[in-house]
Amino acid sequence: MSNTRGKATALLLVAQAIFLVLFGLFVDYDVSAGPRNSSLSTHSTLAHYYPMYQDVHVMMVIGFGFLMTFLKRHGFGSVGFNFLLTCFVIQWSILVNGWFGLIGTGAGRILIDIKSLLEADFAVATVLISFGAVLGVVSPVQLIMMATIEVVCYNISIYVGIVQFQATDIGGSMFIHAFGAYFGLAVARVLYKKSQTNSRKEGSEYHSDIFAMIGTLFLWLYWPSFNAAPGNGTERHRAVINTVLSLAACTVVTFALSAVTDKKNKLDMVHIQNATLAGGVAMGASADLLVQPFGALLIGSSAAVVSTLGFRYLQPLLQRTIKLHDTCGVHNLHGMPGVLGAVISAIIAALANKAAYQDSYHELFKNTLRTPGQNGGFQIAALVVVLAIAISTGTITGLLLKLQVWDNLTAVELFEDEVFWECPQAESDDEDTNDEREVLAGKSTATASA
Amino acid sequence: MSNTRGKATALLLVAQAIFLVLFGLFVDYDVSAGPRNSSLSTHSTLAHYYPMYQDVHVMMVIGFGFLMTFLKRHGFGSVGFNFLLTCFVIQWSILVNGWFGLIGTGAGRILIDIKSLLEADFAVATVLISFGAVLGVVSPVQLIMMATIEVVCYNISIYVGIVQFQATDIGGSMFIHAFGAYFGLAVARVLYKKSQTNSRKEGSEYHSDIFAMIGTLFLWLYWPSFNAAPGNGTERHRAVINTVLSLAACTVVTFALSAVTDKKNKLDMVHIQNATLAGGVAMGASADLLVQPFGALLIGSSAAVVSTLGFRYLQPLLQRTIKLHDTCGVHNLHGMPGVLGAVISAIIAALANKAAYQDSYHELFKNTLRTPGQNGGFQIAALVVVLAIAISTGTITGLLLKLQVWDNLTAVELFEDEVFWECPQAESDDEDTNDEREVLAGKSTATASA
Amino acid sequence: MSNTRGKATALLLVAQAIFLVLFGLFVDYDVSAGPRNSSLSTHSTLAHYYPMYQDVHVMMVIGFGFLMTFLKRHGFGSVGFNFLLTCFVIQWSILVNGWFGLIGTGAGRILIDIKSLLEADFAVATVLISFGAVLGVVSPVQLIMMATIEVVCYNISIYVGIVQFQATDIGGSMFIHAFGAYFGLAVARVLYKKSQTNSRKEGSEYHSDIFAMIGTLFLWLYWPSFNAAPGNGTERHRAVINTVLSLAACTVVTFALSAVTDKKNKLDMVHIQNATLAGGVAMGASADLLVQPFGALLIGSSAAVVSTLGFRYLQPLLQRTIKLHDTCGVHNLHGMPGVLGAVISAIIAALANKAAYQDSYHELFKNTLRTPGQNGGFQIAALVVVLAIAISTGTITGLLLKLQVWDNLTAVELFEDEVFWECPQAESDDEDTNDEREVLAGKSTATASA
Repeated sequence: MSNTRGKATALLLVAQAIFLVLFGLFVDYDVSAGPRNSSLSTHSTLAHYYPMYQDVHVMMVIGFGFLMTFLKRHGFGSVGFNFLLTCFVIQWSILVNGWFGLIGTGAGRILIDIKSLLEADFAVATVLISFGAVLGVVSPVQLIMMATIEVVCYNISIYVGIVQFQATDIGGSMFIHAFGAYFGLAVARVLYKKSQTNSRKEGSEYHSDIFAMIGTLFLWLYWPSFNAAPGNGTERHRAVINTVLSLAACTVVTFALSAVTDKKNKLDMVHIQNATLAGGVAMGASADLLVQPFGALLIGSSAAVVSTLGFRYLQPLLQRTIKLHDTCGVHNLHGMPGVLGAVISAIIAALANKAAYQDSYHELFKNTLRTPGQNGGFQIAALVVVLAIAISTGTITGLLLKLQVWDNLTAVELFEDEVFWECPQAESDDEDTNDEREVLAGKSTATASA
Repeated sequence: MSNTRGKATALLLVAQAIFLVLFGLFVDYDVSAGPRNSSLSTHSTLAHYYPMYQDVHVMMVIGFGFLMTFLKRHGFGSVGFNFLLTCFVIQWSILVNGWFGLIGTGAGRILIDIKSLLEADFAVATVLISFGAVLGVVSPVQLIMMATIEVVCYNISIYVGIVQFQATDIGGSMFIHAFGAYFGLAVARVLYKKSQTNSRKEGSEYHSDIFAMIGTLFLWLYWPSFNAAPGNGTERHRAVINTVLSLAACTVVTFALSAVTDKKNKLDMVHIQNATLAGGVAMGASADLLVQPFGALLIGSSAAVVSTLGFRYLQPLLQRTIKLHDTCGVHNLHGMPGVLGAVISAIIAALANKAAYQDSYHELFKNTLRTPGQNGGFQIAALVVVLAIAISTGTITGLLLKLQVWDNLTAVELFEDEVFWECPQAESDDEDTNDEREVLAGKSTATASA
Repeated sequence: MSNTRGKATALLLVAQAIFLVLFGLFVDYDVSAGPRNSSLSTHSTLAHYYPMYQDVHVMMVIGFGFLMTFLKRHGFGSVGFNFLLTCFVIQWSILVNGWFGLIGTGAGRILIDIKSLLEADFAVATVLISFGAVLGVVSPVQLIMMATIEVVCYNISIYVGIVQFQATDIGGSMFIHAFGAYFGLAVARVLYKKSQTNSRKEGSEYHSDIFAMIGTLFLWLYWPSFNAAPGNGTERHRAVINTVLSLAACTVVTFALSAVTDKKNKLDMVHIQNATLAGGVAMGASADLLVQPFGALLIGSSAAVVSTLGFRYLQPLLQRTIKLHDTCGVHNLHGMPGVLGAVISAIIAALANKAAYQDSYHELFKNTLRTPGQNGGFQIAALVVVLAIAISTGTITGLLLKLQVWDNLTAVELFEDEVFWECPQAESDDEDTNDEREVLAGKSTATASA
C-alpha cells in the first residue's frame, strides 16, 4: 500500500519547520521592500515586475495544474499536487537560488524582492515540467523528494551555464524547459513499470479535456510574460512580440498537422493542449534577440512540427523501444522544443553584432571579449551541460525514488485519485473500472453513495 | 462528408507559409521594440499597454472560447476553433491592419509594437463575434475563409468610419461589435438550413453551462480593459470607471428581467451568460466621454433591457420569420447593444463642448472644424456605413462559403464534435443521440470504450 | 413555494432605479478621471491601482464564485448569485462608502476614481464571505436584503475601527474577513433549520470539486494584490512578499494536516479548496508591517493549523452543539484566521518602533501621540468592535430575513438549482434524488429531456 499513514505529513511538516529556521537564519527583505527611506529611490521594482510576475504565477498553478487534469481519474492529484509542489518549491528555491546567488559575493544574507519571487517561480516551472513526465505514477512523498533534489541540480546547471559560460536564455528554453524535461524523463525511465503502459485509466474523458484547455490557454496567454519578465527596455518589448508571434504560428501549424497525421483526419486534443505551446518554449532562448517578426513565425512553426510529430510518432516509439513512459509528453512539449530553442539561439547569437544591436549588445552578450561565433558556441556548450546534468542527476534521483520507503505505487494505484484523496462518487463511471475503485476506496464510496 | 482529408491542413499550411513570406517582406519591429539606443526614450510603450493587452488577450481565447462551450457536444470545437481563429487572425490582421495604416503615408514597412498586437486582438474579437453566429454549423475550412475575408472588410469599415469620418469609438461598439455581429448574421442567414432549427444537440448540459460561465466572467472582468486600452490620461481612467459601472448595472437588470419574463419565474443561463455583457458593448463608443457615473448606469441598464428581451422574444421570432439562426445570440449581445452604443455616442457627442472637456476635447473629437451637432451626425453616418458594409460583405461571404468545396456540414454533423475531433467516450449521453454519434465516430468510439 | 413571481425582479429594478437617482444626485468623476487639464498631474492613479484592482476583481467573481461551485446541484446559484451580489454591492457600496467618507468633510459630492472601485470590491468581498455561510439555504431576495444592510454595518465598523481607533489593517483581516464571517454566521445561526443538516444534496461530485479549484487557485494567486493594493512604496512591495510567503507555507501545512487527520490518511478537497487560503486572511492586517520573511511563513503555517483543524473538528462540533450550519466553512477560512491576523497585528504593532520603520512608521501608525503598546491595544480594541458589530447586526439581519415575505426556502429547496434556474438535464443524477428534482422542475425537465 502506497499511502503510508503519516509519512507525507511528517515529511512536509519537517520541511516546513526547516524552511522556517533557514528563512530566519538567511532571509531578509531587500531594501526595496524594507523600511521606507526617502533618500532611496526603490519604488519602481514592484511596478516593473509585478504584472508579469502575476502572469507567470497564474501559469504555475492554473496553467500547469489544469493542463494535467486531462486524466479522467486524476484531476484532484493533477491540480492538487501541482499546487503543493508550487508552494513547496517557492520556499525551497528562494533559499537555494539565494545561496547560489551569494557564491563569491561574501555576503551572508539573502535579500528578497519581487524578482526573487519571479525566479522562484522559474524553479517551480522546472519542477512542474518534470512532474508532467511522472504524473500519476508517483506518490506525493516521491514528488517532494524529487523537487528537493531537482532545485539544487537546476541551480548547478544555471551556475555553469549562466554564470560561467555567460549563455543567454531569457525564457529558459535550456535551463527551465530542457532541464525540467530531461530530468523528469530520466526519473520516469528509472521508475518505469510495465503496468504503466496499458492502464485503462490513463486517458481523458470529454469534460476532463475541457478542463485541460483552461491550463493550455492560460499558459499560452501568459507565455509572453514568462519569456519577457526578466528583461528591460526594448528587449523586453521585443520578447513579448516575438513570443506572441511564435505562439500564434505554432498553433496554426499544430492544427494543420494534428488532423493530417490522423488516419480519420480528426484533430487530437493532446496536440491542441500541448503542441500549441511549443512555440513559447522554442522562442525562449532568443525571445529578446533580433530574430525579426518573420523569424518568430518560423520558430513557432518549426516548434509545432517537432512537437506534433513527436506526440504522434516519437512518443509511442520511445515507449515501445526504450520503455520511456512520459505521461504528459513533456519530451514533445518541453524537451525537443527546448533543444530547438537552444540551437536557434546559438545561430542568432553567432549572427549578432554590435552594429545591429547597438546599446543592447552587451546587455545581451555580456562577455565583451568574445566574438559572435564564440557566443554561439557557448550557447551550444550550455545546452550540452544542461542535458548532461539533467539526465545524470535525474537518473540518480530516479534510483533514489525507487526505494520502497518512499511509498511506491502499485499497478492498481496508477493514475487514480482514490489512492490519496477522499473522492465523491464520480459523475460517470465505466462499469468495468468501478470494481477497482471500490476496492481502493473501501468504505468511503459506500458511504458517499448510500 | 464534411471533413475532407487534408483540405484544412493544406489551407492552414499554405496560409502560414504566405504569412511567413509577407512578414519577411513587410514587417519590422517598431523602434520601441528594436535595438536599444540610449538617445531614444521609448521604454514606456510596453508598460502603458501590456497589462490591458493581456486582459484583452484573455478575453479572446478564454472569454470567447469558454463562452461558447455551453453546447453540450461542441466543447472541443468551441474552445478549439476559437483558439485557431485567434492565432490565424492575429497574424493576418497584423498585415492587413498594417497595410491599411500605411495608406497615404508613403512608407513601405509595417512597424509593429505592443499596440499593433492590441489592434490585432480587436480584429480577432470581430471575427470571433461572427463565429458565434455560425457556431456549430460551419467547418474549420469555412471559418478560415470567413476570417480571411472579414479582416479586410473590417478594415474597410474602419477606414471609412475612423479615418474619413473621424468618428469616435474607443471600445468598438460600432466597428467591432456591430460589424462582427451583422457580418456574422449575414453569413448565417445565407448558410441557413432547415436542419439547424430542431437539432437535439443544440443545447447545454449542467456542466457545459458552468464552463460557459468561465468565459462570461472573464469577458465581464476584463471588458474595462477592452474599452480603455487604446486610451490615455484621464480619458482612459474614465473609460474604466464607465465600463465597470455599466456592466454592474447591466448584470442587475439582466437578472431582474430574466426571471420575470420566464413563465415559471426562473433564471435562464443564456441570459446570465450573455446579456450581462451587453453593458460593455453599449458603453464602448462613449466609454471615454463624459457620460457621468449615473449615465454609465443608465447605459448598462438599457443594454440589459435590449439584450435580455432580444434573447427572450426577438431571437425566436427572427428564426421563425426570416430564417435567421444565431447560435450564440450575437444579435442580442453584440448587434443591438452595438447599435445602441453608437446612438448613445452620437447623442453624447452632440452635447459635448470644449468648456466641459477642456484639453481633451480635440483628443476625442479630432476634427476641429465641426460643430458638436456635426460630430454627432458623423457618429450616425459611421454606424450606417458599418452596417451597410457588414451586411453586404457578410452576404457575399456567405454565398462564397456555400460552395461545396468548403466542406459544408450535413444535418447530422451540426453542433457535434465527433465530426472534427477524436472524442473520448462522453461522460453522459442521452441514449437517443448515441446512435448518431456512433455512426459519426466509426471505430474510434468502439476502441475507446472497449 | 419560495420563488414568488416578480418579487426578486421588483426588488432589483427598484434598487437599480434608486441607484440611478442617487448616483445622479451624489456621484461625480474624480478629477483624475474628469476632463483632461494639462495643469493637473493626475495620470498615474490608474497605472498605480489598475493591475492590482483587476486581480481583486477576478477574486470576486471567479474566485468566490467558483470556490462555491463545489456543491453538486448548486453550481448555477453559486456562481450566478455571487455575480449578482457583486454587481449589486459595487453600486451600493460606492454610495455608502462615499457617504461615510464624506462624514466631517462638509463636501456634498462623492468623487469616484479607480480607488473607489477597489474599495467597492472590498465591500463586495465582505458580503460574499457572508454569502458563503448561508450558501444554498437562502433565496436571492434574502441575499439582496442581507447585502443592503451589511454594507452599512461594514462601514460603521470601519468608521469606528479605522477612522476613530486608527487601527491598521491593509488586507482586511478584521474589517473584511472577520466582519464578513461573523456577520454571515450570525445570519446563518438565526436562519438555522433542522433540514439543513442532513441534505443529500449538500456535497460535491468529482467535477464540481475541480470547478471549485478554479476559484481556490485564483483567490490564492491574486491574494497578494488584495493585501497590497491599497498600499504604496516599499510597504506595498513588502505586502506582496509577505502574502506570497504566507500562502505558500499555509498550503504546505494544510496538505500535511489534511491527510494525517483523516482516518484513511487521505486528503480532503474541502481543506485544499479552503484552508490553503487562510494564510492570506491571517497575513492581511500585518501584510505591510515588518514581520520578516520567516514571520510570514510562521503566520501562514499557523493559519493552516487553525483552519484545517477548524474544518475537521470544530465545524461539526458547532453544528451539533449550537446549531451553526456554515455551508462553506467561512468560520474556518475567514473567521478564525481573521481573528488570528488581528492578534498578530496587535503584537507586531506593539513591537514596532520608528527606528525600525524609518520614514514609514507614521504612514502605518498614524496617531503620533501613541506608544507602540497603545497601537497594539487599539488593534485589539478594533477587533472587539468588529466582532461586536458583526455579530449583533448579523443577528438582527437574520431575524429580519426570517420574515416569510422574503421567500424562505423549504427543506426540499435547499442546495438545489432547480428552484431558481432553468436547468438542463443534469449529466449524472443519483436516482434517489431525481424524483425530488422532477417535482421541483415541473414541466421544464420533461420538455428538456423529451
